Amino acid sequence: MSESRLLQQLRRPEDLRALSLEQLEQLAGEMRHAICDQVSKSGGHLAPNLGVVELTLALHYVFDFSTDRLLFDVGHQCYAHKLATGRGHLLDRLRQRDGMAGFPEPRESEYDLFSVGHAGTGISTAIGMARGDQLRGESERKVVTLVGDSSIVNGVSMEGLNNAGTLKRQFLVVLNDNGMSIGMPQGAVAGYFDRIRVDHRFTDLKHKAREVIKKIPLGGALEEIYHRFGEMTLAALDHQHPFHSFGLLCVGPIDGHDLRELIDMLEEVKEIDHPVLLHVKTVKGNGFDFSSEDPTKFHSPKPFRREGCRVELVSSGRSFTSAYSDALGDVMARDDRVVTVTAGMPDGTGLAELMPRFPERTFDVGIAESHAIDMCAGMARTGLKPFATIYSTFLQRGIDQVFQEVALQGLPVRFCMDRAGVVGGDGAVHHGFLDVAYLRSFPKMVLMAAADESTLRAALEFMRTHEDGPSALRYPRDTVPEPLQARTPAFELGRANLLAEGTDAAILAYGFPALHALAAREALAEQGVSVAVYDARFAKPVDAELIGQLVAEKMPVLTVEDHHVDGGFGSCVLEACNERGWPTHGIKRLGLPDCWIYQGSRAEQLAEAGIDADAIAEAVREMLRRSGRRLQRLA
Amino acid sequence: MSESRLLQQLRRPEDLRALSLEQLEQLAGEMRHAICDQVSKSGGHLAPNLGVVELTLALHYVFDFSTDRLLFDVGHQCYAHKLATGRGHLLDRLRQRDGMAGFPEPRESEYDLFSVGHAGTGISTAIGMARGDQLRGESERKVVTLVGDSSIVNGVSMEGLNNAGTLKRQFLVVLNDNGMSIGMPQGAVAGYFDRIRVDHRFTDLKHKAREVIKKIPLGGALEEIYHRFGEMTLAALDHQHPFHSFGLLCVGPIDGHDLRELIDMLEEVKEIDHPVLLHVKTVKGNGFDFSSEDPTKFHSPKPFRREGCRVELVSSGRSFTSAYSDALGDVMARDDRVVTVTAGMPDGTGLAELMPRFPERTFDVGIAESHAIDMCAGMARTGLKPFATIYSTFLQRGIDQVFQEVALQGLPVRFCMDRAGVVGGDGAVHHGFLDVAYLRSFPKMVLMAAADESTLRAALEFMRTHEDGPSALRYPRDTVPEPLQARTPAFELGRANLLAEGTDAAILAYGFPALHALAAREALAEQGVSVAVYDARFAKPVDAELIGQLVAEKMPVLTVEDHHVDGGFGSCVLEACNERGWPTHGIKRLGLPDCWIYQGSRAEQLAEAGIDADAIAEAVREMLRRSGRRLQRLA
Repeated sequence: MSESRLLQQLRRPEDLRALSLEQLEQLAGEMRHAICDQVSKSGGHLAPNLGVVELTLALHYVFDFSTDRLLFDVGHQCYAHKLATGRGHLLDRLRQRDGMAGFPEPRESEYDLFSVGHAGTGISTAIGMARGDQLRGESERKVVTLVGDSSIVNGVSMEGLNNAGTLKRQFLVVLNDNGMSIGMPQGAVAGYFDRIRVDHRFTDLKHKAREVIKKIPLGGALEEIYHRFGEMTLAALDHQHPFHSFGLLCVGPIDGHDLRELIDMLEEVKEIDHPVLLHVKTVKGNGFDFSSEDPTKFHSPKPFRREGCRVELVSSGRSFTSAYSDALGDVMARDDRVVTVTAGMPDGTGLAELMPRFPERTFDVGIAESHAIDMCAGMARTGLKPFATIYSTFLQRGIDQVFQEVALQGLPVRFCMDRAGVVGGDGAVHHGFLDVAYLRSFPKMVLMAAADESTLRAALEFMRTHEDGPSALRYPRDTVPEPLQARTPAFELGRANLLAEGTDAAILAYGFPALHALAAREALAEQGVSVAVYDARFAKPVDAELIGQLVAEKMPVLTVEDHHVDGGFGSCVLEACNERGWPTHGIKRLGLPDCWIYQGSRAEQLAEAGIDADAIAEAVREMLRRSGRRLQRLA
Repeated sequence: MSESRLLQQLRRPEDLRALSLEQLEQLAGEMRHAICDQVSKSGGHLAPNLGVVELTLALHYVFDFSTDRLLFDVGHQCYAHKLATGRGHLLDRLRQRDGMAGFPEPRESEYDLFSVGHAGTGISTAIGMARGDQLRGESERKVVTLVGDSSIVNGVSMEGLNNAGTLKRQFLVVLNDNGMSIGMPQGAVAGYFDRIRVDHRFTDLKHKAREVIKKIPLGGALEEIYHRFGEMTLAALDHQHPFHSFGLLCVGPIDGHDLRELIDMLEEVKEIDHPVLLHVKTVKGNGFDFSSEDPTKFHSPKPFRREGCRVELVSSGRSFTSAYSDALGDVMARDDRVVTVTAGMPDGTGLAELMPRFPERTFDVGIAESHAIDMCAGMARTGLKPFATIYSTFLQRGIDQVFQEVALQGLPVRFCMDRAGVVGGDGAVHHGFLDVAYLRSFPKMVLMAAADESTLRAALEFMRTHEDGPSALRYPRDTVPEPLQARTPAFELGRANLLAEGTDAAILAYGFPALHALAAREALAEQGVSVAVYDARFAKPVDAELIGQLVAEKMPVLTVEDHHVDGGFGSCVLEACNERGWPTHGIKRLGLPDCWIYQGSRAEQLAEAGIDADAIAEAVREMLRRSGRRLQRLA
């Protein structure tokens, strides 16, 4: 472990400019160690951050982002940037409540322009800022966006690139090409990136440049500005680059770990009054053998132990993701019409485990969520049974596809939504808090939630055979609890499941919160209050028969969901009552509040949102107090 | 006007194959006249359909789409396809109830695989079908998708192309390049399309082919299959094409009105076991001078009169679109920080009128909705006041951008949502029935609706000065009614507006349905029932004070909205009550039902949905009957 002398002295980006090249290289090493040490303790994005340390330093060395604009795409590679912008003191609480967010966060620093976490947005927001600065008479501000090689082929990125090509001003896209998505890169453009190699020989580059000048590109519109280029730029122009025809000057690839080359090249391209794409090759996980040799495993690891060269991930409980992967594997083994698709998240969704077993029926399309859903729609149209495996938050990128290509056609595409609810350390950019709200208005859509491993399995089996339109299942970023019930009944459309009887109040929990509801029930039982707990299972259609019965009995009903309280499961219950002319004042809804919940542990977030066991118990007590029904015992 | 002898005999695509080339050309002419005659009566997509008649005939001549797959992108260019597949008898009820849908519609014919209407989806669904057919052992089915030049640079298309490049089978993308979006094409790729020209000289093409063979493309992976190509294909290969680097063999451009060339080329590329992009140049509006000379005006005209060479659009009332355009123009004149963006719909949204007046503050980014929203977010970040002008249904393509780049940052981007509610002839693919449901769960989002021109103006002024987070305004595809009120009060956050007093019941109409509510009020008044009508104005935040007052008075309350009844304005009212412990059984909600509403007039659709004046009056009567409150007078 090296000392972090330079890192400790670093207060602001200007400090970098006082350092020699050797010192910058030393600082890069110090940053790498600091990041690795911290991630080993708290978990976090490791390999992506290790890959861009030199690139980040070079950017801050050449540009002045107190006025220039730096936009991150995805943003999980921002740790070095945060260290360079005076946030070293937050690092030891990485991804924790009131600590350093794992993604860019304007609340932390004015050097962070957008809180991001979803891929593909950097180029488009950068174009907006470039146009905005220009209109406001501030076009001396340079605009830079840092985009990964998988992110740049996302649809939004490519829409942005096509529009960037029409800008008439400085605009720099730095393509951080580490030859990796979160998993392996997908698509034809990735093939091109894979084939091109860094050329370190400057004299050769200069020679190549002369040839380049001779070749007039189609249209010749750029020719006039070539004479203003520096010789490295001219030498490194790549007319074969996939995005050359999008109107950008494509330059590179250059070595993303060679600080001198990075600085020299950035100094040159900084002055070009035309959109430029600088292709930089980096090594994901660079600096440590364990991470550069297995960058997928160390993309965003949980805490791990390093002893010498032995690295061991600290194991936690069995995740819903693993449970899903195993359950889907069994479904696929039983039914050869089942196929599954991920949009660039084979590891995060658990599909990686299934790929070797079902190579022809598992698809990774890269970070292309809209495409993934449309591909599922096409496969469903041929009679297959597609299971789109996707994080709840990323399905937001395909709502229009769910609408038109799936729901309007009545196609039985299945949506398996991992990380539904609050997600812990990733914070607000990754919560899955909207899926019920945006899916429930589609005719024939069936919405379900899993409470434990057995219900997840039962739900998947229901989805396999449910061919009358689309269906969706949500499950959280959490460990699977002990089974909530000795024997889990099969799923029946629109039927809730009684988990525990009770006479004073009823809790309808939508999936996973059933666990907390049962804990609350225990606590209440100690106070002599008897509460029934149901796993609601379905948000659409809700179990109107059960609800009608509870309303008829004048039973206080509490709905609980790990979803925005407006437009969620509880609203479905209210609507079902209202439609039928039933009163609703005996119903209380718990869910995520109408504000943003930032990074922290999932337990902290559930408590903050008021949907953990304590909050549920308190809500029941409050209902009973108000109703007067059992006031005597609680007083 | 020519006879339509051949068209009348056409029953199925096989019939085409019995025709000579001359007869096919005659048939193309007949189709063109039939389409033009009908659109002049009913309105519809004219210029796009006139442009693809020969291309459609050539596709049906070469492929057998009873087993092969033909996928339309957008689909507004499907009229000739419908005529070729036995649907001539439906043409005289084009876009009308139970007539011919204006877009592909599987309910009409098995030749239509998807009902579409939103751009950019054809390639991705085609990939799904290609993969599905392969897995199901039916890979002899050829797959073809027809995509326009503006649609192909939509993000979903480009995600699809990047994935198509990895297919190892026949897969044909026909690029219908008419050099036009709905308006002018946007972006750098469009510049390339504009520069390349059709080359009719076959011998030259052959000569060029020999050169092509000499140039080995980077990677050389395709070389092995070149020897299997026909000579036209080989001659027409374009390695400079923007999508060459996406792994597709790009061929063309060829002349989309030369039936012989189209058929010859399609016969050749049909046999290639590799993804091919065939670039076809067509003339939008081809066949009639009035439409080819002004293809934007005749993209999707209302009914028009043709006398000789004089063509005159039948004028209808003043649209909300025009009212918006004028009102936004005034806002822009007053406030130079206001900018506005459209995603490829300058005419449909009314921005075309403003572009010459404010060339620097109006942006058309092409069919790139996600990008448009992110660009707005970037501009807002620099202190500008962006108004994203977009159809409600197309905003579905940018929900994730509204979430992350706008709402999470708390940026005051304004969403002006045209065509909110049912849209008439365009049918289910274009209804704006979800905007409240998908926007309401974002913290600080303000949701509004316009009832008439004055409220639209007042709402825009409110949005101009509302900087505390995003806001959205919906207005319908309808004519603006006479002012609902002599003087329209300014918008105040979360305040409804009383339009007419009443003592027996209250109607809360969300925007435009206030017109129908007032008509219902008149009808009820004749029966001695006195109903108050409020323009609710806000769905978020709803006017809880007013609602509380009505509930306290035990007033029966009817909510009415031109939006899905689940998750819409009425639900917001229910939730507001439930949150405060108020009873809701005096509240009834009217809105769009949980099923699809197909093409027809807007009046028919509102009646079908049960939200027109008659339905509102009946709902009030029913409420009063049930409540017993005024049963005596109604009995």
